[in-house]
Amino acid sequence: MRRKLIVVSNRGPVRVARDGSVHRSSGGLATALRSLLQHQDVTWIASATTEGERALAGETLQQENYRLRLVAHDAQAYDWYYNVVANPMLWFVQHSLWELAYTPKVDAAFHRAWRDGYAAVNEGFARVVLAELEHEPEAAVFFHDYHLYLAPKLVRQGCPDSTLMHFVHVPWPQPDCWRVLPRAMRCAIHEGLIANDVIGFHTERWRSNFLYSTRELLGEDVTQKTVTAPISVNPAEFAELAQSDPVLAAEREIVGKRPEKLVVRVDRTDPSKNIVRGFRAFELYLDAHPEMHRRVRMLALLDPSRQDIPEYAEYLGAIERESRRVNDRFQQDDWTPIELRIEDDFPRSVAAYKQFDVLLVNAIFDGMNLVAKEAPLVNARDGVVVLSENTGAHAELGEWALTVNPFDVEGQGEAIHQALTMDAGERQRRLEAIRTHVRTHDVNEWLDLQLAALNRVATTARR
Amino acid sequence: MRRKLIVVSNRGPVRVARDGSVHRSSGGLATALRSLLQHQDVTWIASATTEGERALAGETLQQENYRLRLVAHDAQAYDWYYNVVANPMLWFVQHSLWELAYTPKVDAAFHRAWRDGYAAVNEGFARVVLAELEHEPEAAVFFHDYHLYLAPKLVRQGCPDSTLMHFVHVPWPQPDCWRVLPRAMRCAIHEGLIANDVIGFHTERWRSNFLYSTRELLGEDVTQKTVTAPISVNPAEFAELAQSDPVLAAEREIVGKRPEKLVVRVDRTDPSKNIVRGFRAFELYLDAHPEMHRRVRMLALLDPSRQDIPEYAEYLGAIERESRRVNDRFQQDDWTPIELRIEDDFPRSVAAYKQFDVLLVNAIFDGMNLVAKEAPLVNARDGVVVLSENTGAHAELGEWALTVNPFDVEGQGEAIHQALTMDAGERQRRLEAIRTHVRTHDVNEWLDLQLAALNRVATTARR
Repeated sequence: MRRKLIVVSNRGPVRVARDGSVHRSSGGLATALRSLLQHQDVTWIASATTEGERALAGETLQQENYRLRLVAHDAQAYDWYYNVVANPMLWFVQHSLWELAYTPKVDAAFHRAWRDGYAAVNEGFARVVLAELEHEPEAAVFFHDYHLYLAPKLVRQGCPDSTLMHFVHVPWPQPDCWRVLPRAMRCAIHEGLIANDVIGFHTERWRSNFLYSTRELLGEDVTQKTVTAPISVNPAEFAELAQSDPVLAAEREIVGKRPEKLVVRVDRTDPSKNIVRGFRAFELYLDAHPEMHRRVRMLALLDPSRQDIPEYAEYLGAIERESRRVNDRFQQDDWTPIELRIEDDFPRSVAAYKQFDVLLVNAIFDGMNLVAKEAPLVNARDGVVVLSENTGAHAELGEWALTVNPFDVEGQGEAIHQALTMDAGERQRRLEAIRTHVRTHDVNEWLDLQLAALNRVATTARR
Repeated sequence: MRRKLIVVSNRGPVRVARDGSVHRSSGGLATALRSLLQHQDVTWIASATTEGERALAGETLQQENYRLRLVAHDAQAYDWYYNVVANPMLWFVQHSLWELAYTPKVDAAFHRAWRDGYAAVNEGFARVVLAELEHEPEAAVFFHDYHLYLAPKLVRQGCPDSTLMHFVHVPWPQPDCWRVLPRAMRCAIHEGLIANDVIGFHTERWRSNFLYSTRELLGEDVTQKTVTAPISVNPAEFAELAQSDPVLAAEREIVGKRPEKLVVRVDRTDPSKNIVRGFRAFELYLDAHPEMHRRVRMLALLDPSRQDIPEYAEYLGAIERESRRVNDRFQQDDWTPIELRIEDDFPRSVAAYKQFDVLLVNAIFDGMNLVAKEAPLVNARDGVVVLSENTGAHAELGEWALTVNPFDVEGQGEAIHQALTMDAGERQRRLEAIRTHVRTHDVNEWLDLQLAALNRVATTARR
């Protein structure tokens, strides 16, 4: 059955240039939703983020297999919404990153950014959704992520019979974390979300935290509305990518200069990714294992992220400082223990996926972490995954990975040693188990679980 | 009925000098337990913390109405136990103070401090408790606070039939906060506590968080073992104090130079107390109300705390910097908006309790906060209490205070204004309600609630 869907997310699946030409955007969400576009009748609503896109706002842009509507926001409102409220505030709350003794300070500027930024942009989205629903009253609306917590309630008010679904791609923290926000704001977030018919989370852990905070804050039990649907990847796409020319070229370069063992990490330069502690853990490993000097390297491929936000700029500084400190301490002749690359280079990342002996994913908190699913699919060295217990991926892959506590740098250093000395049969068995899991729980399953939940709502409504 | 009790806490109720002379210690716990000493047959076990005390360890020191046993620990072990594990680690975990993107790093040094410090000192306490129980097998053991989480299980193992009770004086955070510690450590803490027959907390909120984290971590439901018992004060003692010579002298000094309105805060210089944000809130208030310049002052009486610990030394620096910034900005002739005193001067604090128009208690998290109970008892100006929603005291006094969110400096500035412009009848009504509550729920009630829980255990055991 081909279903009418209105997908709403801050970033769209493409970038539209001023001349109307379209470029695929690289975000994980766009990739994950690609098969939705193939099988369903989709109108996608997203923010216009360039001058070219702003000029096209208001029109319905017919793409190959879906329609695109761009929403133009006031530039000041968008800055407050995106760079003050969504990032860092909501992101930091949901990943437990604030240093509460000092930050955040909820001052008049933040109150204004909430009202005239976050709330205003959500109202803008809701208006466009309501206009679409007038044309297509039977379409279900599918909201995405922490940028759009207020919109569902506004749509529900304007169109009480609409069918609304929301997927939260980030961790849902326990209720006290939400207390960083004044009561009116944290209530608005929860009230906005429960206006949906279906609310999806990656894991039982995030889902149960959401039920807990909704109960505590609003006194409501919305268990029946929630669904656990772990996002995943398209294995065929990665099989193809792994053999593509740009990846093969990048792989030749890595192979040409790799030492015997390679510890790989691939991340955005986000404080939640725990990159600084990862370098410290590698230092502790090198301290404990001088026999591995010159024979091992950590390759850190880091996509620079949100550099308009001071906390992110500072974190990049801390990454560079820690990497230099470790390298200054251990560097010998032509051996540098950490190779740090701050750039957005996806082919190189996939090449590193193929070449890792250890994949380090030590995130402080992470909704899912797709690197932990993507990299094993294409790895050619029976590599071992070292995985933080606070990632969504750990709920699925934990039994085949080496589990680490993200704050325990000593434990992470020991896990690197354990991974590098594990016998080949054990490594192969674990890697194969991860691959089998990801192949049988791919991105289509993620979509199917949500559409099934939507069907249950529709059936109940018909009764 | 006079009951045999073995009280165990890190700090004892007195300091013993090398010549054997005894000086009352000023800690809140000692004060709270004083009536226990009057009515029960108490042996108190505490750490020897000076050379004089170490010389007396091993002996039983007969005091006026109880016996004292001091435990000497290895100096290095005590430093790790106190200055690395208990403070800051456990204190910071329980008050949600870490900046998780950067701190803490659980490294080999911390693993060692846990094993050879915290665990070792807890073992030392357990040995002395077990020795006492040999003499007095019918005595109940009453452990206090976060320094002693491991001791109850050790005592239970050595003496399975013993009756054990523990009171947690700090907030119990939600389960994810405990994940800052590696699994073995967080399990040991919970296993240690549930070895008690009765575990007490100040509020339902901390108690329910404890039940939640015990369920999540150990899969155990220990509801029947827990009791909510809000600590309180001795109203008669404060009535007497308020008329004592040192307090009257300090009060004359305050009255001599006070402006029309006085905003008072009394705290240790602890990051959990939220002093820096309090100054920022006062600045926002002064910004919004130029008519109050020269007519209002914030008097901050701060007891310097734990200056051996870097996070505490840094926080004191931040307090001084923020206070200076606000004063530099607003100072005029003989008016300085913030008077900052970093000293331990209890009579001056009680004098300020009498003189406040607004009492600011904006703690980030606080197990109880006794200032919010003590100050209204003796206040002579129908002062208004501005109270953080994250203090234990808020569960009891919230309806008569102005509630603030500790992170919302804008809201705190507005609350100061609301308090200073509240009409006299309303102020009087609220203050009287707080006093009545504290007088009818005093420190004896706190003890009675726990002894009643202990009686239930004893009755059940007899059956």
